[in-house]
Amino acid sequence: MIAIDWGTSSARAYRLGPAGSVTERRETGRGIMQVAGGDFPAALRDLAGDWIAAGEGRVLLSGMIGSRQGWREVPYRACPAGLADLAAGVEAVPFPGAAVRIVPGLSARDASGIPEVMRGEEVQVFGALDGREEALLCLPGSHSKWVRVRGGRIAGFVTSLTGEAFAALREHTILGRMMRGAPEPGGAFDAGVARAAEPGGLLHHLFGTRTLGLFGRLPEAEAASYLSGLLIGHDVRANLPAGEAVDLIGSGPLMALYGRAIAACGGTARAGDPDAALRGLARIGETIAWECAWA
Amino acid sequence: MIAIDWGTSSARAYRLGPAGSVTERRETGRGIMQVAGGDFPAALRDLAGDWIAAGEGRVLLSGMIGSRQGWREVPYRACPAGLADLAAGVEAVPFPGAAVRIVPGLSARDASGIPEVMRGEEVQVFGALDGREEALLCLPGSHSKWVRVRGGRIAGFVTSLTGEAFAALREHTILGRMMRGAPEPGGAFDAGVARAAEPGGLLHHLFGTRTLGLFGRLPEAEAASYLSGLLIGHDVRANLPAGEAVDLIGSGPLMALYGRAIAACGGTARAGDPDAALRGLARIGETIAWECAWA
Repeated sequence: MIAIDWGTSSARAYRLGPAGSVTERRETGRGIMQVAGGDFPAALRDLAGDWIAAGEGRVLLSGMIGSRQGWREVPYRACPAGLADLAAGVEAVPFPGAAVRIVPGLSARDASGIPEVMRGEEVQVFGALDGREEALLCLPGSHSKWVRVRGGRIAGFVTSLTGEAFAALREHTILGRMMRGAPEPGGAFDAGVARAAEPGGLLHHLFGTRTLGLFGRLPEAEAASYLSGLLIGHDVRANLPAGEAVDLIGSGPLMALYGRAIAACGGTARAGDPDAALRGLARIGETIAWECAWA
Repeated sequence: MIAIDWGTSSARAYRLGPAGSVTERRETGRGIMQVAGGDFPAALRDLAGDWIAAGEGRVLLSGMIGSRQGWREVPYRACPAGLADLAAGVEAVPFPGAAVRIVPGLSARDASGIPEVMRGEEVQVFGALDGREEALLCLPGSHSKWVRVRGGRIAGFVTSLTGEAFAALREHTILGRMMRGAPEPGGAFDAGVARAAEPGGLLHHLFGTRTLGLFGRLPEAEAASYLSGLLIGHDVRANLPAGEAVDLIGSGPLMALYGRAIAACGGTARAGDPDAALRGLARIGETIAWECAWA
């Protein structure tokens, strides 16, 4: 089977051997927004045509590929939802030479009834759980997700615009003028996380990034770390119940930053599995019917 | 006397007659960032050279013109500070044919010891007070200021990045893709203000702007109003003590939006004086020594 986590700006493809082992893997920057003319069959051939030609007849996709902007809009399943609910919502798309299926995303409502959506993270969650039935998971990113698992099902989740807000504030406000370099896990980041616990609110805390610089208390090389700590600190404090353990899912620099912020806020962060998507897709792939009208 | 409120992106000039009456006024988009080569004497001649030639020998400036990027960096005065402290910090700049003076800005520290700064708003505050000795004032804008006056002096103030955050989020995140038009004081704005009182934090509330649109609960024509309500709601809730009266200073659409948010949060907003800067400059101009070495 071929498993592909196909998001907005990138795609990760895995060729699976027996018992879910990975025999080959590829990563490309060709997310759904980079597929010319929306020709997803051609993009799939580019990405994994040789694997299909070599005999892989089953392809399972997750992520924004199942959105309105993707190959086919697969309706969200509502929380609470388990692996079986995801499998039941899988839809087929026509593709010559292989059975291609897309996993649905999930919807939920937060405590105030505001809708929530995810596409792709739900598969990573089930891959990371590895059979556990109770967990709090965090998937840091442009739109960070906090996911609550109860009884082996995703009970609900909330999203914060943390990463995208950081980029917009850094690139397009006065704050970025006194900033050099990328956020690092260190003292300036910790100071931002600590600041998030103080009164005044995020909009006021943001302005402090500038005044601390003006008064020589925040060097330009540390200002991006402080701003990142402010935003991640606000995100973690809003979503982490006191003292709880959190499974971090993902890869890259955000893992260390979120891990540090969670610890500073009294929680325990467990480093996550960077191949969680693959494991989730493999589990779903084992359960669905692969009889294929278009093969 | 000539009074000029000279900020980053605009300048407002007033020619004053007896007892502070305004005989002429001009507004230009030539803020300090638009003065070619930093030639502020030439910019002043363009702005008010005819008034000076007609006999006005005194020119008093406030705002970012006194910053490092302006004509001359005039050191901040520390809060608490009264009108006499501002007058004592006024500095002269050389200009042939008139005595030109710049009013200092103010610095403060918030409850956590983080520095705060303003340039220009302090003059507006004293103009708006009109002799009152106790007040809470709000000056909405890119960097909204909340100013506490006690015993006729500015005791302290805090700044929120409200307006600049709105612009960056709207123009440079996914939120703006489902938005048309400008924020209006209406039901969608009120819904954003109400949302700011709910749990989850601002970063989570921001993402709801997108999901409400995805689920058909927030039309594109109302999304900017909702986002504005969210941000102004968070700003007001962080800075408005329960039931207090607030003097709003400024002009333009933000007055109605902040007034509505303050009322929704249980406060009382009083519409402010759009010419507060002029009145503050006139009062300072009456008290300072105008003997001029450079005239």
